[in-house]
Amino acid sequence: MPDLLPRARSSQESVFARMSRLAAQHGAVNLGQGFPSGAPPAFLLEAARRAVGTADQYAPPAGLPALRDALGADLGVDGADIVVTTGATEAMGLLAQALYGPDDEVLMLEPVFDIYLPQARLAGATPVTVPLRLTAEGGWTLDLDELRAAVTPRTRALLLNSPHNPTGRVLTREELEAVVTLARQHDLWLISDEVYDELYFEERPTSLRALAPERTFTVGSAGKRLEATGWRVGWVACPPGQAGPVAALRQLASFCAPTPFQVAVAAALPLARQSGFYEGLREGYAARLHLLARGLRDLGAEVFLPGGTYFLMARRPGWEAEVLVEQAGVAVIPGEAFAPSQALPPGLLRLAFCKSAGELEEALARLERFCRSPASHE
Amino acid sequence: MPDLLPRARSSQESVFARMSRLAAQHGAVNLGQGFPSGAPPAFLLEAARRAVGTADQYAPPAGLPALRDALGADLGVDGADIVVTTGATEAMGLLAQALYGPDDEVLMLEPVFDIYLPQARLAGATPVTVPLRLTAEGGWTLDLDELRAAVTPRTRALLLNSPHNPTGRVLTREELEAVVTLARQHDLWLISDEVYDELYFEERPTSLRALAPERTFTVGSAGKRLEATGWRVGWVACPPGQAGPVAALRQLASFCAPTPFQVAVAAALPLARQSGFYEGLREGYAARLHLLARGLRDLGAEVFLPGGTYFLMARRPGWEAEVLVEQAGVAVIPGEAFAPSQALPPGLLRLAFCKSAGELEEALARLERFCRSPASHE
Ligand SMILES: Cc1ncc(COP(=O)(O)O)c(C=O)c1O
Ligand SMILES: Cc1ncc(COP(=O)(O)O)c(C=O)c1O
Repeated sequence: MPDLLPRARSSQESVFARMSRLAAQHGAVNLGQGFPSGAPPAFLLEAARRAVGTADQYAPPAGLPALRDALGADLGVDGADIVVTTGATEAMGLLAQALYGPDDEVLMLEPVFDIYLPQARLAGATPVTVPLRLTAEGGWTLDLDELRAAVTPRTRALLLNSPHNPTGRVLTREELEAVVTLARQHDLWLISDEVYDELYFEERPTSLRALAPERTFTVGSAGKRLEATGWRVGWVACPPGQAGPVAALRQLASFCAPTPFQVAVAAALPLARQSGFYEGLREGYAARLHLLARGLRDLGAEVFLPGGTYFLMARRPGWEAEVLVEQAGVAVIPGEAFAPSQALPPGLLRLAFCKSAGELEEALARLERFCRSPASHE
Repeated sequence: MPDLLPRARSSQESVFARMSRLAAQHGAVNLGQGFPSGAPPAFLLEAARRAVGTADQYAPPAGLPALRDALGADLGVDGADIVVTTGATEAMGLLAQALYGPDDEVLMLEPVFDIYLPQARLAGATPVTVPLRLTAEGGWTLDLDELRAAVTPRTRALLLNSPHNPTGRVLTREELEAVVTLARQHDLWLISDEVYDELYFEERPTSLRALAPERTFTVGSAGKRLEATGWRVGWVACPPGQAGPVAALRQLASFCAPTPFQVAVAAALPLARQSGFYEGLREGYAARLHLLARGLRDLGAEVFLPGGTYFLMARRPGWEAEVLVEQAGVAVIPGEAFAPSQALPPGLLRLAFCKSAGELEEALARLERFCRSPASHE
């Protein structure tokens, strides 16, 4: 048989899919992949059950008008600048296809959400990463001079993700302003992955688009906001006038996002905003974050608290993702999965706390047993 | 602002999306885009309503094991060789990425389903088309010598679609055997778009995979089979051992297909098979095909009957898609949309009969009024 192309042969199962698979195999508590273990809110489920049987055929590729309008109202942009996608994953891939190609470089921060690198490479471009560095105080710093120095004549776009997966770092308004100045100087596109925009524990994160509407593509995810990661509804808010070509690429990718879930999300977005759903979500997550963080510290782990997202990072001698899933029965993601090109401090693990308090307690109990077992001292 | 890349700038709204938009705008009966105007079957809807609220988070990128197994059983292949995709559209795009790249040529038949060309170009490859020719008797012939002559040292894959959109042509077993011989001689991959595999009006179409399992990727669509085009569940059955790389590319595209609909389709596939659902579907479509064909002939149109799909082609002097949607209030697809590089006989239109008898009758009544109006004689 002829060979598959190198780009197919070199593609690998993602660490998230792999860890979920290992978790199932070993009966582990899954604190790996970032999906809630609970159900989506009742108002979303009801809207979806109503839509099934009434809105089952193709939607326009750019999205149902009702959803584009609801997103426009929620994000404060014109609905005509919104393109609905099959999750934020697809949105990021489309932007790579639309914005970068052979000979282009795209800047991003490392640790880095795993898909950005292969998506850039599939588009023919070269991803260049600038480190977020772990400080002695346990925070993550971005060296703006380092970012500036990484720009070359080939740089075409700068990709940010705040709140940041996996570190939970929220970029400050000052940092974003410096990024915008840089982007304007070099005429770069800005891609802002804001899927965790409603998941923060301190001040509300600044949306990059507010500072540079003319060049910012903002990516979001109903899966993350509304606790339904399997429904595959995401979006891009484009700079004015740029939605057409993105929608055209989008119809080649998967034609349209699932219609009944578009209807449901359109109905749910204003309800979520008016009913205080996001506030409740944050409160619930803050409680589970502290439950997990306290438990991990009690076991002697060093814990790095996030400013947003539903992940925290932690480390403890003897804890390794591959060992924990098999021997402790707890699945987590190894930090190195996010740092392919630059050394992270060793031993960092990413733990998801978008799980029930019961699961978090069970995971802590298992980790405690593991700490006491001879295996953990090998 | 920097420019978007040429590949984004040159992407256009598809003729299907455009015609559905114009249909809505002019209040036209939509015989353009290929989606049923009825609801999906009750057994599918019930399964989906049950799944919503119980299976709402990420599925494994290759698909839920239950769905891969159900598809394997239905198609007579190993579930491990199946990759579930976000519709057949995504499946075709992934195969383009996996199988062809710069300097490669891919052979396909023209008229051609519109997405194949830009998907091949996005992968960097050159699509080369071989005509299906309309005969004096109103059938479509494939000249096998012409197909053989189109193979060059750069040809990497041969893409077939049977039953064929837009002509409805079903390739015969003998034609497929000749294709397989050619593919084996030149070591080509075979891609077989069989989304209309259950929609045929004569003999059951031969599945290409049965003749060349080692090199055939078979693409299917739950949207087409189960009348739910907006649910975005499709699949690829890969040659043994090739599913891994396709699944890896798939997770970069949209991570996974909508989980609740995967659950529903997994439950519905065996039910559809056992309950005679597909037989009923074919009977219903055969009746509507003849309703539409008869009505069109009564209006003086020449009608080309399909062997499969839910489309027929027809022509009549004075009928043009752009004119009909505006002035007759009937949306159809112009034949040229499927024939970008080679001249089709002029005036061919594709009409979808996956609409209710009432809609088909209304469309015929409108066409009749239009035929009698002065506008139709301009
Ligand atoms: C930073 C980031 N971007 C994008 C995604 C993908 O989101 P979606 O499920 O909407 O495709 C994730 C999922 O974990 C993420 O963490
Ligand atoms: C020949 C052919 N292939 C693929 C598709 C896309 O199918 P899906 O809706 O599953 O993406 C269509 C849709 O009309 C089609 O006609």
